[in-house]
Amino acid sequence: MRLTVINGPNLNLLAAREPELYGRATLGEIESLVQAEAIRLGVQLEWFQSNDEGALVDLIQALPGRADGLILNAAAYTHTSLALRDALLAVRVPFVEVHLSNVFAREKARRRSMMADLAIGVIAGFGPHSYLLALRALHARLANV
Amino acid sequence: MRLTVINGPNLNLLAAREPELYGRATLGEIESLVQAEAIRLGVQLEWFQSNDEGALVDLIQALPGRADGLILNAAAYTHTSLALRDALLAVRVPFVEVHLSNVFAREKARRRSMMADLAIGVIAGFGPHSYLLALRALHARLANV
Amino acid sequence: MRLTVINGPNLNLLAAREPELYGRATLGEIESLVQAEAIRLGVQLEWFQSNDEGALVDLIQALPGRADGLILNAAAYTHTSLALRDALLAVRVPFVEVHLSNVFAREKARRRSMMADLAIGVIAGFGPHSYLLALRALHARLANV
Amino acid sequence: MRLTVINGPNLNLLAAREPELYGRATLGEIESLVQAEAIRLGVQLEWFQSNDEGALVDLIQALPGRADGLILNAAAYTHTSLALRDALLAVRVPFVEVHLSNVFAREKARRRSMMADLAIGVIAGFGPHSYLLALRALHARLANV
Amino acid sequence: MRLTVINGPNLNLLAAREPELYGRATLGEIESLVQAEAIRLGVQLEWFQSNDEGALVDLIQALPGRADGLILNAAAYTHTSLALRDALLAVRVPFVEVHLSNVFAREKARRRSMMADLAIGVIAGFGPHSYLLALRALHARLANV
Amino acid sequence: MRLTVINGPNLNLLAAREPELYGRATLGEIESLVQAEAIRLGVQLEWFQSNDEGALVDLIQALPGRADGLILNAAAYTHTSLALRDALLAVRVPFVEVHLSNVFAREKARRRSMMADLAIGVIAGFGPHSYLLALRALHARLANV
Amino acid sequence: MRLTVINGPNLNLLAAREPELYGRATLGEIESLVQAEAIRLGVQLEWFQSNDEGALVDLIQALPGRADGLILNAAAYTHTSLALRDALLAVRVPFVEVHLSNVFAREKARRRSMMADLAIGVIAGFGPHSYLLALRALHARLANV
Amino acid sequence: MRLTVINGPNLNLLAAREPELYGRATLGEIESLVQAEAIRLGVQLEWFQSNDEGALVDLIQALPGRADGLILNAAAYTHTSLALRDALLAVRVPFVEVHLSNVFAREKARRRSMMADLAIGVIAGFGPHSYLLALRALHARLANV
Amino acid sequence: MRLTVINGPNLNLLAAREPELYGRATLGEIESLVQAEAIRLGVQLEWFQSNDEGALVDLIQALPGRADGLILNAAAYTHTSLALRDALLAVRVPFVEVHLSNVFAREKARRRSMMADLAIGVIAGFGPHSYLLALRALHARLANV
Amino acid sequence: MRLTVINGPNLNLLAAREPELYGRATLGEIESLVQAEAIRLGVQLEWFQSNDEGALVDLIQALPGRADGLILNAAAYTHTSLALRDALLAVRVPFVEVHLSNVFAREKARRRSMMADLAIGVIAGFGPHSYLLALRALHARLANV
Amino acid sequence: MRLTVINGPNLNLLAAREPELYGRATLGEIESLVQAEAIRLGVQLEWFQSNDEGALVDLIQALPGRADGLILNAAAYTHTSLALRDALLAVRVPFVEVHLSNVFAREKARRRSMMADLAIGVIAGFGPHSYLLALRALHARLANV
Amino acid sequence: MRLTVINGPNLNLLAAREPELYGRATLGEIESLVQAEAIRLGVQLEWFQSNDEGALVDLIQALPGRADGLILNAAAYTHTSLALRDALLAVRVPFVEVHLSNVFAREKARRRSMMADLAIGVIAGFGPHSYLLALRALHARLANV
Repeated sequence: MRLTVINGPNLNLLAAREPELYGRATLGEIESLVQAEAIRLGVQLEWFQSNDEGALVDLIQALPGRADGLILNAAAYTHTSLALRDALLAVRVPFVEVHLSNVFAREKARRRSMMADLAIGVIAGFGPHSYLLALRALHARLANV
Repeated sequence: MRLTVINGPNLNLLAAREPELYGRATLGEIESLVQAEAIRLGVQLEWFQSNDEGALVDLIQALPGRADGLILNAAAYTHTSLALRDALLAVRVPFVEVHLSNVFAREKARRRSMMADLAIGVIAGFGPHSYLLALRALHARLANV
Repeated sequence: MRLTVINGPNLNLLAAREPELYGRATLGEIESLVQAEAIRLGVQLEWFQSNDEGALVDLIQALPGRADGLILNAAAYTHTSLALRDALLAVRVPFVEVHLSNVFAREKARRRSMMADLAIGVIAGFGPHSYLLALRALHARLANV
Repeated sequence: MRLTVINGPNLNLLAAREPELYGRATLGEIESLVQAEAIRLGVQLEWFQSNDEGALVDLIQALPGRADGLILNAAAYTHTSLALRDALLAVRVPFVEVHLSNVFAREKARRRSMMADLAIGVIAGFGPHSYLLALRALHARLANV
Repeated sequence: MRLTVINGPNLNLLAAREPELYGRATLGEIESLVQAEAIRLGVQLEWFQSNDEGALVDLIQALPGRADGLILNAAAYTHTSLALRDALLAVRVPFVEVHLSNVFAREKARRRSMMADLAIGVIAGFGPHSYLLALRALHARLANV
Repeated sequence: MRLTVINGPNLNLLAAREPELYGRATLGEIESLVQAEAIRLGVQLEWFQSNDEGALVDLIQALPGRADGLILNAAAYTHTSLALRDALLAVRVPFVEVHLSNVFAREKARRRSMMADLAIGVIAGFGPHSYLLALRALHARLANV
Repeated sequence: MRLTVINGPNLNLLAAREPELYGRATLGEIESLVQAEAIRLGVQLEWFQSNDEGALVDLIQALPGRADGLILNAAAYTHTSLALRDALLAVRVPFVEVHLSNVFAREKARRRSMMADLAIGVIAGFGPHSYLLALRALHARLANV
Repeated sequence: MRLTVINGPNLNLLAAREPELYGRATLGEIESLVQAEAIRLGVQLEWFQSNDEGALVDLIQALPGRADGLILNAAAYTHTSLALRDALLAVRVPFVEVHLSNVFAREKARRRSMMADLAIGVIAGFGPHSYLLALRALHARLANV
Repeated sequence: MRLTVINGPNLNLLAAREPELYGRATLGEIESLVQAEAIRLGVQLEWFQSNDEGALVDLIQALPGRADGLILNAAAYTHTSLALRDALLAVRVPFVEVHLSNVFAREKARRRSMMADLAIGVIAGFGPHSYLLALRALHARLANV
Repeated sequence: MRLTVINGPNLNLLAAREPELYGRATLGEIESLVQAEAIRLGVQLEWFQSNDEGALVDLIQALPGRADGLILNAAAYTHTSLALRDALLAVRVPFVEVHLSNVFAREKARRRSMMADLAIGVIAGFGPHSYLLALRALHARLANV
Repeated sequence: MRLTVINGPNLNLLAAREPELYGRATLGEIESLVQAEAIRLGVQLEWFQSNDEGALVDLIQALPGRADGLILNAAAYTHTSLALRDALLAVRVPFVEVHLSNVFAREKARRRSMMADLAIGVIAGFGPHSYLLALRALHARLANV
Repeated sequence: MRLTVINGPNLNLLAAREPELYGRATLGEIESLVQAEAIRLGVQLEWFQSNDEGALVDLIQALPGRADGLILNAAAYTHTSLALRDALLAVRVPFVEVHLSNVFAREKARRRSMMADLAIGVIAGFGPHSYLLALRALHARLANV
């Protein structure tokens, strides 16, 4: 099973960025954590981050034939990007939407997602653990089907 | 570690109720699944269901001194009950909000939660697996702190 | 043919309650009127009333195997209860929504129904006669199918 | 007792028009059905249909001295015509609003009625049977008073 | 003069619940305070609390013939319960709406009351003193009339 | 100077229709009153009424070359007809909008006019006198320019 | 008959102020015009202007016993002053709301009036002539009653 | 192939009406232009115009058996007529919505269409050329299918 | 203890103004009532009224060093004055908001307060008694702290 | 005559992407179709696609001196990009907005265009044919002027 | 060059009022600072403050012939006063809107300005420095033109 | 002191782009103007422009350790980019938001800023001078602290 993790804008700044909200782990440390779990589950995992909406669209377009599922933390673009929604509609790869922080406890603009209705499900608020939960959930779903 | 799972209205009808949305497992089967995982994690787990808003308020009020954390699937009351919100504010027990279905892919009224901002986090869309993920997430959070 | 009539909060106060709006018949008198018509139609009819949202959910959950159709006057809960909607979605018993008063001539909050779109149809404004019309309509529908 | 039935735009197309929504009876067949019931009740019944808002206003204006009550299915004009509302306010003939389909289960624009608050009551969703129920309800109301 | 005090959901948790908002007195201590004042005014006072919307409807329905006036702190149901509104409309007992906290300084959802327009008046923000003020106000109003 | 008065739906029912709102003069009596004043001012005046939106559009389209100004009481169509607005935009005849009743003291839907911004001005609330004032205002405006 | 004209903020700047909207007559010239007409009608007329909301409230409060009717051009306060509304509610002097410009052809904020529903009627858009029409309308109304 | 063109209110005034918006061609000249192109494409074309909503409903109802497709410029009724929408739903003739002006660059009320979602597509802003484009598009669509 | 009472626009008209809403006591009579109670409580009380928003701002600005608390009935300015809110924010004198009438039972505009969230609490609907209750509540609060 | 076609995000996936909505032609095939027509019309045509909002802004900025007109299918950015709007405002190249699908029959977010009001016109719903129609319309417009 | 600075309600309380928001300088100290800079620029500067909306209208009306430009900090009236807007429209003196605090970081009601669209520009958030920047900006603009 | 200026989309087109709104200076000329002032103030200044949202996020992420403050003209992205907001939240560099034009006098969409509440302050409407004012304001603020 091959899975891809795509991270959106400003997630490259983790640990430096608002640590009370996002925690003190760097994105690299989170990747290591998730890769370790992926190995345990026998999953081959690719990991991407970009600040650019167009580059994120490109990454999603490249998924078919390369990944069986997607873990997507589109960060700020979660709430504003119809282009990402269209890319997800086009490739139809099953995905889980994740957030480090509990977006439902923040500003109103972060409570609307442009893509959650296309996802298998949503996991938010557990810090780096959100990715681990998403990995397990996606693995379980794809292994069953 | 003692955890409680509280299930809201109509979840007693699972398997019979809209199986294409909620899956074919009964609530009893889901409880068995979650209890097995709880035993594996060394967690003592209580499991409740009620169709009555007042009874659910009572259940939440009884948590202090009885549970270290709560997994809450308030079902329809998630979206309408300010009384449940007040109960959660009163007892201040850490909790995870779970949903079997992806509520973000359904009617607009189900996209607003009266309590998600008080939760550690939210997990929605993974069927019975949502409870397992919530159990692990809550266990990890409480074990660390 | 077995039909059930479920009445929501404050309908037990009829005759005492705002008679200019709801008429001077008690709920018991209306029940007699409707039972008489049911006998004429060869319909076996059960009649319930409760002020409690949870108890009404329980009553609806108990319908399968017990009733072929439902006449539902959920009163105030018509306009606020997502839990009743979920119960109706779960049991899928054909039902008619009735109101004694013309809810469309009252406050705005009473013009929205949480369940009318799930009903066969809606009858409102004819006082006790609303129940008789609903009985005939439901009987005709079920007899034909 | 003299009653009038007024039908609004596109109801002349019944049977041809969206039969899954409106049923397979023509408007003529529905008229026969309702006339038969009217004869049984000793009611003299006039039946009109027009696609024209102004013509419908004329028909309502002509009611006083000609009809004791009105069964009105204003179809699309139900939701947009302030002129029909004014005509009903002017003539003050008691009327019942009917719809073949359950308008509460359709697009949002069809859930608002410009005239329901002026009616004795509303009956929607029972196909041709809606007219029969309205006839009985109106007959009962006018016979009592 | 006989008066009733009805308290809504979660008020049984006072002192434990958000003391910075609701103060450190238990509901029992507030009852003692208010009973003392009632004795001073020659008022016979009954005191109730329930977390259940249906039970609160029952309590209000039981008022006629038992109480000359009502002091109502419906807590969270103040803002969501059309059923309580209907019960108050049905019994027509004069009542004062009270709140311990200043609801106008809190979340937006708490600024709307489903029943304030039916009350003689509203008193909010004075902690346990709100009940004393309401008692005096209600006593003065009923003594005069 | 040639002026036209165009009256919209249900104004033919004046005196019969809601006399507490619209007064007890028939439309014919108002016409006589206004014609008398027109003669005094040396104005040649045509007077129309129709219940039909399309017929009113036709009447407005016929104004150029026939009338120097228009007094328009579009009644219910004032608030709903974009077609009348387009006709007024097309013919560009100067006009005054009049209403018998004070539309600003009635339902919200009657406070919006589809055409008031195209008028020289608006006169509302003076019963038949509204027409006389409009006649004087329009005469004064056209005589000056 | 004694009438009062009250003019609100910035009307003292007429002629200087946006002449394309308000015309080239000064407020003094308009007063002369209106006084001349008042004399012709045998009306005793007082004329006031103030830029101050409180002073305008004082002027309205002073009307009873001093004026039989009021012509009110509250200018900008028309759209924002609940205090003027309350003063008009308190004194209950019959009044006509006037505007020089056609407020319905301007910004949205000017289309809402805080007091039009309390007036006999509204006249807007005829420049200084608006006052003359209001004088005649008010005179006619008061002379009749 | 037989096609029909239906034109709504005020389009009979083209050339006279707001030429800066709608151009200087009369409706007759546009018809000649479109007929010439129809002949070139081997299409038999009928051309109608009416200012009356009811008449336009009649025209649409008459299409089945008479036309294979429709070019519809409902003008002002595009934005207000639910009756036209119902007629189009009833006859299910494939149609293209056209506008002479770019409705998206005009008032907000003209940006909503009651029928665009039922059309094959929409063409707006090209003056008389809009009809030619619609003819070609409809011809191509129908020839292919 | 020194307290100030500030009354806003039109309260000087009490007894004359809408007595069915505001009662038949003059503002002077209410002042006497409240002064008597103040003497009983050993409170030194100043009493002001103004129709002018600016003057009310001045009165609030003068409070520090002169009063320990404020009873504020800002009347219409309660609902519109951001300037009064700013004055209250600036002086930070503890205050109680009072209303004679039950503002929650009146027009929607009167249900929003620009300052209630800054107050200790709100008392509305008890006529002159509202001031007495506010005096006691403020006295109790300040005496305790 | 030189024209440019600019295609926005995800249009590079055509044929693969939701073929029931967008058809089975690849973007390359559509380009060939349009180039063939361009040659027939003697138009020199450039064709671009990008998933990146900034790159699309760059492409539009480069138009002056390079193209006489633009055919723009901004896809998802049509509905969200103020930056594209600003670029179009800056270069003032005449353009036609095109869409493959009928955007008016889809989700609400796709019914608002950030740029349609700046276009000559809009063509939507005709699949690849939308581009051909736009080419003809733009060619005709530019050839005439 | 003669410039005027007009300060609105509560600015006379600076230093005392919410110093964390508005800083610790008194309005007199800010005036000195700005006068010093005005002297350096050769500008003659008048300085006013009032808590009264009407007085501020008077000050603005007095500007023509007395000042070449205006620096306006209307404080709370910025957000509510249509009368100030009208005064600025009437005198047409070029002005800069200034705020001590960053109004965009405060309550929603402070984000709307009734007059910013009439200003040359807006400067907010720099404390007393906001006035200095406004002085330079206005001086530069008026010196150039 | 090191400061950075970041310019958003389409600002590279200045002088060419809508000169009546943005003036006739090129972005290079503005940079020269601002650099000259920076030298005078002893400030080291970097200057960037990009049309790409992702590139602007990168530029802001690179600020810590490189600049003591930021002058940000995010142009169109000011109003739409949550990603820029997140970048500013992450780096916490003090910044001033500037605009060449008075955004408050333009379309509604330009009146909302996604980042103004995070800024020290906002300066809008003074053309190239806006940057000079921002430079001085930021220099003064950073020099003081």
